Amino acid sequence: MTETQKSSFEESTLNRNVLNAEYAVRGAIAVKAQKYGEQMRLGEDLGFASIIQCNIGNPQILHQKPVTFFRQVLALCDYPDLLEKEEAKALFPADARARAAEYMGRISGGTGAYSESKGALVCREHVAKGIEERDGHPCDTDDLWLTDGASAAVNYILQILIRDEKDAVLVPIPQYPLYSATLSLLGGAMVGYYLDEKSGWQCTIDKLRETVQQARDQGKCVRAITVINPGNPTGQVMDRETQEAVVRLCEEEGLVLIADEVYQCNVYAEKKRFDSFKKVVRDMGSKVHLLSMNSISKGFFGECGRRGGYMECVNFPEGVKQQLYKLSSIKLCPNINGQICIAMVMNPPREGDESYELYDREKHGILDSLARRAKMVVQSLNKLDGVSCNEVEGALYAFPRLEGLESKGSAEGDVPADAQYCMALLDATGIVTVPGSGFGQEPGTLHVRTTILPPENEVAETMARWAKFHQSYMQAA
Amino acid sequence: MTETQKSSFEESTLNRNVLNAEYAVRGAIAVKAQKYGEQMRLGEDLGFASIIQCNIGNPQILHQKPVTFFRQVLALCDYPDLLEKEEAKALFPADARARAAEYMGRISGGTGAYSESKGALVCREHVAKGIEERDGHPCDTDDLWLTDGASAAVNYILQILIRDEKDAVLVPIPQYPLYSATLSLLGGAMVGYYLDEKSGWQCTIDKLRETVQQARDQGKCVRAITVINPGNPTGQVMDRETQEAVVRLCEEEGLVLIADEVYQCNVYAEKKRFDSFKKVVRDMGSKVHLLSMNSISKGFFGECGRRGGYMECVNFPEGVKQQLYKLSSIKLCPNINGQICIAMVMNPPREGDESYELYDREKHGILDSLARRAKMVVQSLNKLDGVSCNEVEGALYAFPRLEGLESKGSAEGDVPADAQYCMALLDATGIVTVPGSGFGQEPGTLHVRTTILPPENEVAETMARWAKFHQSYMQAA
Repeated sequence: MTETQKSSFEESTLNRNVLNAEYAVRGAIAVKAQKYGEQMRLGEDLGFASIIQCNIGNPQILHQKPVTFFRQVLALCDYPDLLEKEEAKALFPADARARAAEYMGRISGGTGAYSESKGALVCREHVAKGIEERDGHPCDTDDLWLTDGASAAVNYILQILIRDEKDAVLVPIPQYPLYSATLSLLGGAMVGYYLDEKSGWQCTIDKLRETVQQARDQGKCVRAITVINPGNPTGQVMDRETQEAVVRLCEEEGLVLIADEVYQCNVYAEKKRFDSFKKVVRDMGSKVHLLSMNSISKGFFGECGRRGGYMECVNFPEGVKQQLYKLSSIKLCPNINGQICIAMVMNPPREGDESYELYDREKHGILDSLARRAKMVVQSLNKLDGVSCNEVEGALYAFPRLEGLESKGSAEGDVPADAQYCMALLDATGIVTVPGSGFGQEPGTLHVRTTILPPENEVAETMARWAKFHQSYMQAA
Repeated sequence: MTETQKSSFEESTLNRNVLNAEYAVRGAIAVKAQKYGEQMRLGEDLGFASIIQCNIGNPQILHQKPVTFFRQVLALCDYPDLLEKEEAKALFPADARARAAEYMGRISGGTGAYSESKGALVCREHVAKGIEERDGHPCDTDDLWLTDGASAAVNYILQILIRDEKDAVLVPIPQYPLYSATLSLLGGAMVGYYLDEKSGWQCTIDKLRETVQQARDQGKCVRAITVINPGNPTGQVMDRETQEAVVRLCEEEGLVLIADEVYQCNVYAEKKRFDSFKKVVRDMGSKVHLLSMNSISKGFFGECGRRGGYMECVNFPEGVKQQLYKLSSIKLCPNINGQICIAMVMNPPREGDESYELYDREKHGILDSLARRAKMVVQSLNKLDGVSCNEVEGALYAFPRLEGLESKGSAEGDVPADAQYCMALLDATGIVTVPGSGFGQEPGTLHVRTTILPPENEVAETMARWAKFHQSYMQAA
């Protein structure tokens, strides 16, 4: 074996697109936090009581209870023998048993068989029903693909669009780094459009149009725009007027509209309401090509680990849908457990059903608590010196701006000042966050993303730890 | 909106790699079968009693019962409240409850939370234990990634390897078309090496070496070789001598060895035994870079719809593993339900455990039946005029050769003769198969892939339907 041949599997010889991809949500800080967690399990004292994972929207890891009805149905579908056992009747309400029997009756082979590549028809029917109720417009099950989380949907749409490094997709800055990472992997270009922090992270249409033009002037072929609503990491809820302007822009510029709407249940601001882009497009009678995504990972259910979701392809040409079908068929099918879960998220228990009261109580319990936590986190952050934070109108994150550390960043060389801050915050308090540089931000500004997910009775203590750290860090800076 | 901009989302404007990809297992014949199924549900008489899906290794859709212990533990993990309920004790054996409690105690946030990107440590530990018992060599959990089925693993390894259209991977012909499809999507090259039908689909090392040289002469950079053992669609089990020769070839030629071992539990031939490439590599003391894959979809468990599996990266450079970690972190994590299932597949109930007897009976019941069905299918096929079929030593498929139809193919133009045959077989009998052209075959030969999965009491009738069709089809040809 010659040395040349041996070395051909070194890191440097790998696909450059992979080497170039970045994903800060699970980057160096998250990796260090995991090590700390292991050290603490082995009894080491790191000076704080626990690791608080505010780096990722993962509610159940912070003890959010799953929705009981969903879990009952899932358990029955995994072990359908229970449906026939008398003893199980005391453990599962009648509507959960009926629902599980419906899924098991209509999903050939149950949770252990590959389904149709787009997802089992009964699950797509339930999703379609929920979309129709939400929007007041019909939904064709043929336009629906169930997916292993929204990440899979993002991958599908970008994979069919990106042909080479000239093909570009507009992505908000700050953005959820799945978009930049996926575009890197596919060898395409990301064109950022800045959200306006001063106006509560709203999207400015004139600036957006300018960004499209600039990209074209640079030889890019702008194929699509991603809108994240409610915003991640920025927490804003888009107003209806801006949504309509985005649709018109897509019509005028020939852009596919990729609507990341995974936080659609997470709206806390009293004056705000979530309208899906599907509703906006249909209300306007627009023919714009729209991909609308949803996920079981967020909302009040937070079933991240189950990997479920859907994408609805609105006004897509038949040939494009055939290509998407082929892509989904290569992956065989999304996991059935996740398919059943998204079906229930979109078609939950109804008033009068045995499980309705508990379901409704769990739902509002979690959403009301999230709304309170959103306020508490923002208020605490705004009390810190040099920190300003917009209202968290929706989603699961606050994205405060840090001022007064800009010089620190440049002096230290490569590690951005916000990443230094987040690492120091972890070291001192066990709180895990993600630096703004992982999402993109206006040059010269610094931010941190934190979730609002610590349990409500721990938020005050968490924010107090943070405040204490902040004071001493800024004094030393 | 100008016409040019409007047309930019037509099929023809999509990523060429996507347009070029093919995946016959769920191609035109499978799509037609699905339509037939819907017509029959609506009461239409198509002249046969049922659709028999022999196109895909999907045991539970053909009524294979899932392993009880696995399903009990999964149900408890989905609805862990049951662990605390007295009434549930009658429904779940003690070892299933203990196992679920172990997983729930060690997977932070349970089945609803994102785990570490490589999979929860407890699940990787159970997988590692199973690998060690299988091979008699240590397994480091750090080398393990849990995956959503083996497809995800194939995607990871090819994604890091393929840089451009010159980069090539050796794939057996006939092959499982996931490889050709994924290489198309990534814009890489597939170099086929022919398996030798006359010697029971064995791999001939001299021919393999010749193929590598020819590819290099054509300017290809051959980066890896895929071995599918037991073979799909060909059903052979590789002998130890050939395995060692493949390892030596990889060493000499600097190739990464991709071992698709998802059928490792499915060996029926009495004189054959499955040795993992991990065992072979370690026994030889080789430093070859080996990726070994397994899945919950096959074996005697057949949990296809759950999407679970693992890949073990043996002798991989640290930097390469870091890139794989990044890729897996962009996908957040494999679904937890699937993680738990692969953990149980690799660490099943032990002798003395309450569930052992049932587990063992279910396991051997299915495997013994598969062995009998493998024989029945091959014998029936070999009785057909112009059909010859090798022994199904392992896996879930027979791949008979058809003779006497070669002229039919060329006369008809584009549709290959084997695809015509399979379509006619579906139309006449409801049996769904895949033409050999979907897997690749020696030029001038024709084959069909069928699973051996119809329920044992239906195999004779299925093969009789096929025989009747075959006779009249060949007469008309």
